Amino acid sequence: MPSKNENLGSSKTNKGNFFEDFHVGMSLKHATPRTVTAGDQALYQALYGSRFVLASSDEFARSVGLAQAPLDDFLAFHLVFGKTVPDISLNAVANLGYAEGRFGVPLFPGDTVTTTSEVIGTKENSNGKTGVVYVRSTGRNQYGEMVLEYVRWVMVRMSALALSPRKSPTKAAEVPDLLASVKTSDLTIPEEMTFAGFDSVLSGSPYLWGDYKVGERIAHVDGMTIEEAEHQMATRLYQNTAKVHFNQHSEGQGRFGRRLIYGGHIISLARSLSFNGMENAVKVVALNGGTHVAPTFAGDTIYAWSEVLEKIELSGRSDVGALRVRLVAAKNNDCGDFPLRDEQGGCHPDVVLDLDYTVLMPR
Amino acid sequence: MPSKNENLGSSKTNKGNFFEDFHVGMSLKHATPRTVTAGDQALYQALYGSRFVLASSDEFARSVGLAQAPLDDFLAFHLVFGKTVPDISLNAVANLGYAEGRFGVPLFPGDTVTTTSEVIGTKENSNGKTGVVYVRSTGRNQYGEMVLEYVRWVMVRMSALALSPRKSPTKAAEVPDLLASVKTSDLTIPEEMTFAGFDSVLSGSPYLWGDYKVGERIAHVDGMTIEEAEHQMATRLYQNTAKVHFNQHSEGQGRFGRRLIYGGHIISLARSLSFNGMENAVKVVALNGGTHVAPTFAGDTIYAWSEVLEKIELSGRSDVGALRVRLVAAKNNDCGDFPLRDEQGGCHPDVVLDLDYTVLMPR
Amino acid sequence: MPSKNENLGSSKTNKGNFFEDFHVGMSLKHATPRTVTAGDQALYQALYGSRFVLASSDEFARSVGLAQAPLDDFLAFHLVFGKTVPDISLNAVANLGYAEGRFGVPLFPGDTVTTTSEVIGTKENSNGKTGVVYVRSTGRNQYGEMVLEYVRWVMVRMSALALSPRKSPTKAAEVPDLLASVKTSDLTIPEEMTFAGFDSVLSGSPYLWGDYKVGERIAHVDGMTIEEAEHQMATRLYQNTAKVHFNQHSEGQGRFGRRLIYGGHIISLARSLSFNGMENAVKVVALNGGTHVAPTFAGDTIYAWSEVLEKIELSGRSDVGALRVRLVAAKNNDCGDFPLRDEQGGCHPDVVLDLDYTVLMPR
Repeated sequence: MPSKNENLGSSKTNKGNFFEDFHVGMSLKHATPRTVTAGDQALYQALYGSRFVLASSDEFARSVGLAQAPLDDFLAFHLVFGKTVPDISLNAVANLGYAEGRFGVPLFPGDTVTTTSEVIGTKENSNGKTGVVYVRSTGRNQYGEMVLEYVRWVMVRMSALALSPRKSPTKAAEVPDLLASVKTSDLTIPEEMTFAGFDSVLSGSPYLWGDYKVGERIAHVDGMTIEEAEHQMATRLYQNTAKVHFNQHSEGQGRFGRRLIYGGHIISLARSLSFNGMENAVKVVALNGGTHVAPTFAGDTIYAWSEVLEKIELSGRSDVGALRVRLVAAKNNDCGDFPLRDEQGGCHPDVVLDLDYTVLMPR
Repeated sequence: MPSKNENLGSSKTNKGNFFEDFHVGMSLKHATPRTVTAGDQALYQALYGSRFVLASSDEFARSVGLAQAPLDDFLAFHLVFGKTVPDISLNAVANLGYAEGRFGVPLFPGDTVTTTSEVIGTKENSNGKTGVVYVRSTGRNQYGEMVLEYVRWVMVRMSALALSPRKSPTKAAEVPDLLASVKTSDLTIPEEMTFAGFDSVLSGSPYLWGDYKVGERIAHVDGMTIEEAEHQMATRLYQNTAKVHFNQHSEGQGRFGRRLIYGGHIISLARSLSFNGMENAVKVVALNGGTHVAPTFAGDTIYAWSEVLEKIELSGRSDVGALRVRLVAAKNNDCGDFPLRDEQGGCHPDVVLDLDYTVLMPR
Repeated sequence: MPSKNENLGSSKTNKGNFFEDFHVGMSLKHATPRTVTAGDQALYQALYGSRFVLASSDEFARSVGLAQAPLDDFLAFHLVFGKTVPDISLNAVANLGYAEGRFGVPLFPGDTVTTTSEVIGTKENSNGKTGVVYVRSTGRNQYGEMVLEYVRWVMVRMSALALSPRKSPTKAAEVPDLLASVKTSDLTIPEEMTFAGFDSVLSGSPYLWGDYKVGERIAHVDGMTIEEAEHQMATRLYQNTAKVHFNQHSEGQGRFGRRLIYGGHIISLARSLSFNGMENAVKVVALNGGTHVAPTFAGDTIYAWSEVLEKIELSGRSDVGALRVRLVAAKNNDCGDFPLRDEQGGCHPDVVLDLDYTVLMPR
């Protein structure tokens, strides 16, 4: 006997892909393309309070060779990421990591981003209920130019159908070899950008590339408390449809009893907080890796600290260098002691984000 | 002896119109005209998370013949509606219904909307304290083109003056004949729009007009919990001045003890949720009717379901058809059972919105 | 032995200036320049619900001679103010007052504002721990035109270093002579603006300059309750970095136990509320003075009232006059009794803002 829903109901809603639906080599073209505007940037400003100078000022952006102020780099990231959710992670248990993230041409107001993904690895878990899926996702503008490309891996559930009757693993594990960090030769420094006349009074700090040293740590001092309305507005702006972020009625009965904050919201808060001490880290060029170490919830106050991991000379460029930086965010801990590990070498209980990224900084 | 306020105070503030101030044939030109921008659309995006493709992408909008992405249809509705509040419903007890709503030319960033209303009916209630006012409101762009036209009726209080001394009814009831739904020949399908090359991968679903059948019901799965900051920001964006939405100090002593959420906020949430299962309902062309069945408050989680009421062929158009759809929103009920009526045939206690609207869908 | 932080940590973060760092004649060029957009205006709209016609409609703005709708005047104020915070008031105890504020050319979407300040006075307090700093700050657009110029004075802490060992006052007090109000001849009325054909139906009120009289008081009726997400988004939009507004983790242990709302948020709420009764006060031209009388917190409901202090004829202009207005905001008090003083002549306990400003109004 059909249930009453089957009698009446349609099956047109998106169920998302389950672990057994993914196979290496599979290509996905994600809906819906998204035109970005000055409105998006204003909201991003209101949500995170960023002060990095390129996204803040058309005039300044022109002074370094751009046509106008680009959108913030991580806004571009979130827009590309959001598109992949309905196809990649609607049935995800956890977002496990990032690698090989390269930022290409900047996004400007009026540009339209379209995102595609390719499955590059799958590995069924021994519990037989979930598996890890590796995808390389690429956002392109309306000219087909690469805006962002990155790998992420997520733990995805199998469907009820795949679980019952229990079947043997459908495919051998294929785990991609991923680079520890993006190669210097793969960093995109937009050709038109030149930092020769960079005004470090207007940018907010006299400290340039030469002033930072490997191993240097910076506690970024400020903290921001997150409200439900803020992370919900952010995540909807990115058209990210993951249910756990918006629905207290269902999440109230879930594992945390609360709405979970989109991990990318923490990335943007940490990046914004990092202005205080790294003001001239004007452009993100690589996301080498990253883990959302612990969940965050409304009411948490986010702080951040950075460590310079590597100083990178850029071929043929005496005006600008790159810094590879660890960016750590913690909750309800002012980061004055640079929290990272606990005494047993595990994760410090306050740490929520451990990111490895590369930024351009004028010399 | 005058009170001290009469001594000093001015009477320049807007008292709004009371029931006795309205008469059939009365015309109102509403302040303030409003230029719409990409900023409005970005906020709308952040508030509701809509993914319908036309408002999301300039490139896609061009592929169907528009000059650029139009604003979301219900954003246009709220902007027009908001203008009418100071003149029509500042002294309203309840917003009772909508009819004969027609969406005309799309609104694009940079357009300026001006709204007028005509009173088309009045009916005093037997309590002698309130009456129902019917108005037809029209929003026009800077070229005088109709953007939206709709009828609503509201229950409005009489002024203290009209009540004391008690007078006999000032006018005979005049109740307009309203159509059950907008005539097909009155639907506006912008001439420049053509769906021949419609890309249903980018739009988010393979299901087109031919795939839906009358009587089909779709539970839209997702739910969104509303925060005070969200509905307040939305309602202020629309320049809707109804006091009940913003003032906890006064509403705390009112009938609900809480700020009441603008009914249109629920319409937009339900429309946005309906993307999951009706992705290709790309444009709203009619608002045939609708009732805000019950009030909503911050903390409520809104879900929605749809039923296809009618499939409409459009004369001379093989590329696109229309669907007349019932869109129901419920609070704290996932709509898997399509709530509408209770066992006595009254309203289901969780239902908050019962809307009847018509959308375009490519064939 | 160095602390572990000194071992590892960098000192590149901004400590801000302490009282002893300021001296009369000191010039500061503030980071970061800021391009304003229609997105900023949309957020401002959503945060305050303003309905003043110039910022609302491009078409209306053109009808009075402007090229398009300018940003709201106090949005310009907040953007300029926000820039000064990292250099002027990062170590402030209190923001004490404003004077000699002049609004110059309007800001339009696309303009970039850069802000400078000059120290015009310092006065050490007798406690030897704090002092008052007077600064004149100026925001200019990309053409170097003055957008806003104003004086504010703040109480700023001395650094720990300056306090120990205790030193004698480093400098004699220099307190600037400040005007009680901006001179009429110093008001900027943009030359291109003409109000001859001003449409007072579209602007929302028939009351023009001639209809207001000195001493007239208007209680603005409406109230708005503030949410944490709202004031945080506003203050970040203005790139104001004062810690007390964002960090519940630290403020929970501070003097109020709560995040303090940026005083400018109250100015904008009061200005927006003042529309109801002063609809044709279309442009702010001077900020003669102002005090944030008491702090406000999320959950407070803000009301406002105005008093006409002065009617000002503008030389050679028969189409427009100015009104000098006192704008008072109170919390959780509907302002029907025009609260200002308590029975002992001190501040009324509900009053939070006492502002003296000058507006243009068509005649």
